[in-house]
Amino acid sequence: MNIHELIHELRVPSKTKIVLLVADGLGGLPIVKGGLTELETANTPNFDACVAEGVSGLSTPVLPGITPGSGPGHLALFGYDPLQYRIGRGILEALGINFAVGAKDVSIRGNFCTLGKDGTIVDRRAGRPTTNRCVEVVEKLKTIAFPGVEIFVEPVKEHRFVLVFRGDGLGGNVNDTDPQNIGVPPLVAHGADAPSQRTAAVANEFLAKAFEVLKNEPDCNAATLRGFATYPNITTFRDLYGMKAAAIAVYPMYKGLARLVGMDILDAGVTPESQVERLQAAWNDYDFFFLHYKYTDSTGEDGNFPLKVQMIESLDKIVPQIRELKPDVFIVTGDHSTPSKFHTHSFHPVPTVIVADTVRPDGLNKFGERDCLKGGLGHFQAQHLMLLAMAHAGRFGKYGA
Amino acid sequence: MNIHELIHELRVPSKTKIVLLVADGLGGLPIVKGGLTELETANTPNFDACVAEGVSGLSTPVLPGITPGSGPGHLALFGYDPLQYRIGRGILEALGINFAVGAKDVSIRGNFCTLGKDGTIVDRRAGRPTTNRCVEVVEKLKTIAFPGVEIFVEPVKEHRFVLVFRGDGLGGNVNDTDPQNIGVPPLVAHGADAPSQRTAAVANEFLAKAFEVLKNEPDCNAATLRGFATYPNITTFRDLYGMKAAAIAVYPMYKGLARLVGMDILDAGVTPESQVERLQAAWNDYDFFFLHYKYTDSTGEDGNFPLKVQMIESLDKIVPQIRELKPDVFIVTGDHSTPSKFHTHSFHPVPTVIVADTVRPDGLNKFGERDCLKGGLGHFQAQHLMLLAMAHAGRFGKYGA
Repeated sequence: MNIHELIHELRVPSKTKIVLLVADGLGGLPIVKGGLTELETANTPNFDACVAEGVSGLSTPVLPGITPGSGPGHLALFGYDPLQYRIGRGILEALGINFAVGAKDVSIRGNFCTLGKDGTIVDRRAGRPTTNRCVEVVEKLKTIAFPGVEIFVEPVKEHRFVLVFRGDGLGGNVNDTDPQNIGVPPLVAHGADAPSQRTAAVANEFLAKAFEVLKNEPDCNAATLRGFATYPNITTFRDLYGMKAAAIAVYPMYKGLARLVGMDILDAGVTPESQVERLQAAWNDYDFFFLHYKYTDSTGEDGNFPLKVQMIESLDKIVPQIRELKPDVFIVTGDHSTPSKFHTHSFHPVPTVIVADTVRPDGLNKFGERDCLKGGLGHFQAQHLMLLAMAHAGRFGKYGA
Repeated sequence: MNIHELIHELRVPSKTKIVLLVADGLGGLPIVKGGLTELETANTPNFDACVAEGVSGLSTPVLPGITPGSGPGHLALFGYDPLQYRIGRGILEALGINFAVGAKDVSIRGNFCTLGKDGTIVDRRAGRPTTNRCVEVVEKLKTIAFPGVEIFVEPVKEHRFVLVFRGDGLGGNVNDTDPQNIGVPPLVAHGADAPSQRTAAVANEFLAKAFEVLKNEPDCNAATLRGFATYPNITTFRDLYGMKAAAIAVYPMYKGLARLVGMDILDAGVTPESQVERLQAAWNDYDFFFLHYKYTDSTGEDGNFPLKVQMIESLDKIVPQIRELKPDVFIVTGDHSTPSKFHTHSFHPVPTVIVADTVRPDGLNKFGERDCLKGGLGHFQAQHLMLLAMAHAGRFGKYGA
């Protein structure tokens, strides 16, 4: 029996509520040897109170040593094995611009490029056009149509756009047409199976029409396609856990990931305060709330240690308002670490705390990487976090007699 | 290679002895915030000495957040993946009354019920008859026979009885005939495959005869059948580990679980002292001893914190006599937690200590949930405990060159 079958078998109806607060890229590292991490540096009286009342530990997003992107990081937190459920790049690109991907779609990442007169690629990124220029050229691609397949083209930024084919029987096993090199022509798309051959035929025809439409553009006179991806066949959160779930996120990518597992997306302003207001307003309508906070990650990616500390402190300030709603289970964690020192995601485990009446106390009183090491949750796999959430929410019966 | 194949490959002959002392439902919770658990409260000088000499940690019976019944809890301790090996309810019910279930058996839980004149169920539990009454009515069912299949009917308590069909080619994929509702007639049994269809036919015929035999009873004038289960196809303990194993348990369910994995069952009195005497008497005859102590669980289920503390202290007292026998490996653990606060099993990890000459010391000297958090075993899966037992007993060779 796999874990999802187990969840399905054990879950029981309940009126309890769970709030999962994800501080993206929460974990960090000291800048200097012997120093403190961002979280250890931050003044977080409210997180610390959670640790004192709750049970803490360190979450491993995928496996030790594996640095996840946002897709696998969040899927694991939602309880989906990130090695089993893979979200194709085309889908993530579409989610990232808030495109409502559906079950009949093949999503593709497009790159404008520059072809020379001999038909070989001179610049794989078309001289990195401005995003305004990208919008302008994408408008021309929107004129392309052919029967039987709906086509959507949307700008992303600079040379990047999203292309979606919507129709019956389209597969996603198609090679990238970007040869990853200059001085050679773009590749022809080939499908590895019958549905994917249909997609490849559409792609090749689309590209031929695109080259025709763009032929007089000085920079973006062609395009390559990458990361063909069909909609993942994923059990919805509601089918899996029997909970009505809502996501309150600012960035499109995280709204998209939540939509992918069937959560409702609740719009809110960009500040944590407005996210909490939205949470308050929707409190009676859902069993499960996913709150996503981006700024711990973006400041880490900027390598801005003091600003990441400040963003952690800003998030800490909204904790009392969340807890006033009296969720039965309140969890603070991250989808991965983003140490300012690295300017990017890392593989280090992620500080996590669960607050519920049913926790076994572990004697800690501070939220930080070194503190969590001594916590009652120990090191655990992120994909098991939802099992703990369900258990503490009284939403599981006993396994076996 | 799976773990059982690995064990088979690595095990080497040895004369070492292992004692596994299972305090059922050992782990607990504080009743009041900031308080101590039952085990932390108990005065346990002998367990504490084990911790000082041994290595400690916390065992996760199935997965984080999953509360196991006794079946999965013990299978994991015996080294069988509790998600792979499932013991059906009918089997557990039969084990619970010490019925010697065999390979050709389908075990079923029966419930007496009351039918109205129109043939619909008036009371699913036949007004909860006394157990004496149950014994009396079961005697009438014992008269039922038909060719080709041996039938056993045994009382359990109140409205519950065990029914076993013994014969060749009987399957267990049969629906419950209990409709879980009143005002409707009992369901007809259907088999999901050919062997189970044979079982269903026997079940329907048995029920027809039972209704005839019981038709004049005022309360128990019919019965429903649930939890049809064939004998699990399980590698014996001896085949797996190459050890001759004995179980010294008081309650039938635990004797039954031990018998299920092929252990010999040694009868003893109901006190831990008499269990130790039995252990002493059998010391030279076995490599592995499983001692089961029920009262830590039953007091937890009664919500009796002080009595659970006392039961832990009673168990602690027999530890010196066990250790005088000089087992090469002595393990104290539980199959799950049963916090008095919950009045039932829980998902919290279980304090565990291994004493052997080969342990790496971890500097602890007290047996308790918070202490074990800092132990050398960390958080580990219960199904890996036997790997550690075999290793510390010098019963494993090296894996690979």
